[in-house]
Amino acid sequence: MNIEFFLHKGERIDDLQRNNLKIIQHPDKFCFGMDAVLLSAFVSLKKNAKVLDLGTGTGIIPILLSARWDTAHIDALEIQEESANMASRSVSMNELDQRIAIHQGDIKEATNLFPRDSFDAITTNPPYMTNHHGLKNPELPMAIARHEVLCNLEDIMSQSYHLLKPGGHFFMVHRPSRLAEIIAVMKKYRIEPKRIRFVHPYLHKEPNMVLIEGTRDGKPQTTIEPPLIVYDKEQNYTQELLDIYYS
Amino acid sequence: MNIEFFLHKGERIDDLQRNNLKIIQHPDKFCFGMDAVLLSAFVSLKKNAKVLDLGTGTGIIPILLSARWDTAHIDALEIQEESANMASRSVSMNELDQRIAIHQGDIKEATNLFPRDSFDAITTNPPYMTNHHGLKNPELPMAIARHEVLCNLEDIMSQSYHLLKPGGHFFMVHRPSRLAEIIAVMKKYRIEPKRIRFVHPYLHKEPNMVLIEGTRDGKPQTTIEPPLIVYDKEQNYTQELLDIYYS
Repeated sequence: MNIEFFLHKGERIDDLQRNNLKIIQHPDKFCFGMDAVLLSAFVSLKKNAKVLDLGTGTGIIPILLSARWDTAHIDALEIQEESANMASRSVSMNELDQRIAIHQGDIKEATNLFPRDSFDAITTNPPYMTNHHGLKNPELPMAIARHEVLCNLEDIMSQSYHLLKPGGHFFMVHRPSRLAEIIAVMKKYRIEPKRIRFVHPYLHKEPNMVLIEGTRDGKPQTTIEPPLIVYDKEQNYTQELLDIYYS
Repeated sequence: MNIEFFLHKGERIDDLQRNNLKIIQHPDKFCFGMDAVLLSAFVSLKKNAKVLDLGTGTGIIPILLSARWDTAHIDALEIQEESANMASRSVSMNELDQRIAIHQGDIKEATNLFPRDSFDAITTNPPYMTNHHGLKNPELPMAIARHEVLCNLEDIMSQSYHLLKPGGHFFMVHRPSRLAEIIAVMKKYRIEPKRIRFVHPYLHKEPNMVLIEGTRDGKPQTTIEPPLIVYDKEQNYTQELLDIYYS
């Protein structure tokens, strides 16, 4: 089949360098970044896990997860019609319709869209920026993906608590500058922070991403993992980064 | 003066390798560790700062701070009579009586011992271990220094909030495994986590200490600093560790 069949005007197909997977993106709109790739590699799932990706965008996380965890079934929720549509077409193009279901809808309504206490794991790469006052066009797709225009940390945690099975796992990538707030909100909604890893562009630089795993109703005890360093002194990817991308 | 004059039976005098400072310790009892040294180096003070060290033990933190910040005045509180006595003698031996005042007393009573809203900074290297049930001898000095027998995180934060000036700074070293709880308790008592640094024994190992700075009534925004690595691949101290110890 000609994969161009799946494309709308202005879109392109990017090769994910893994299991021959591809994804449809629009170069002028929100394209996935290293955060989604690192989150996918940070996730750990049990066999036949039922997974929900909140705010899936163009579906990068479910597609990458499907390659790493071949027994997982993944539901994915995206509020923006255009992104959800691209995600659905990417799923079909990769022949993953039996394993990934894309839903268009609002994270704040997630407990009305999916059964409660039903997921083994929830993943999310949510909007990072808190302040959407002063955003010139808060209704633009890019603003919705990057700023907490339509949902915030409280919405994500409160919905996730009810959607996870007791003991289910929550995985998120976010900005380190919001770590204290993230932890406070997780604890408020009884998703106990269990595992945290900071991603530093260079060894001697502050991290610009944090990967965090929580457990619904877990006991308080956090493991901070060794730092994940992106570039070495010569500005090449470190071996660990290469391993995450290509193995 | 013969410094042996300050010693009681079984005690020894250790050289701090800084400004000719010395400290009295008892080799069979609690001796200071790298945590106190790293916390002292993590602290930043303004000129003429009024500082309080909670649970000072044998006074290592005030003595090291006095060398780094020569205009600071430091009060230090220790509940155990023997440790407080050793700390007082170390202060006198170093001729620091004008700058450091050791007080024997309970952290839980600190707001009755010191004026409220009066300190620019509070430092603390508190007991790390939460579970003191099952401790064979919870009244032993070592148990009191290491386990939350006589005070816990809630006591420290609630007292610190009232003792700090508005905008005053709180500095603590603790175990990374308790990070989520630490952050939740800090936020509960409005000491906002502002700066966090993890100390890793080796680059590819989990951290075994966390340094944390909070600000009374501060705005939520946390800086995670680059990792502090103790040993290099050859098991020598890294340059940064050497700089902290000897400069």
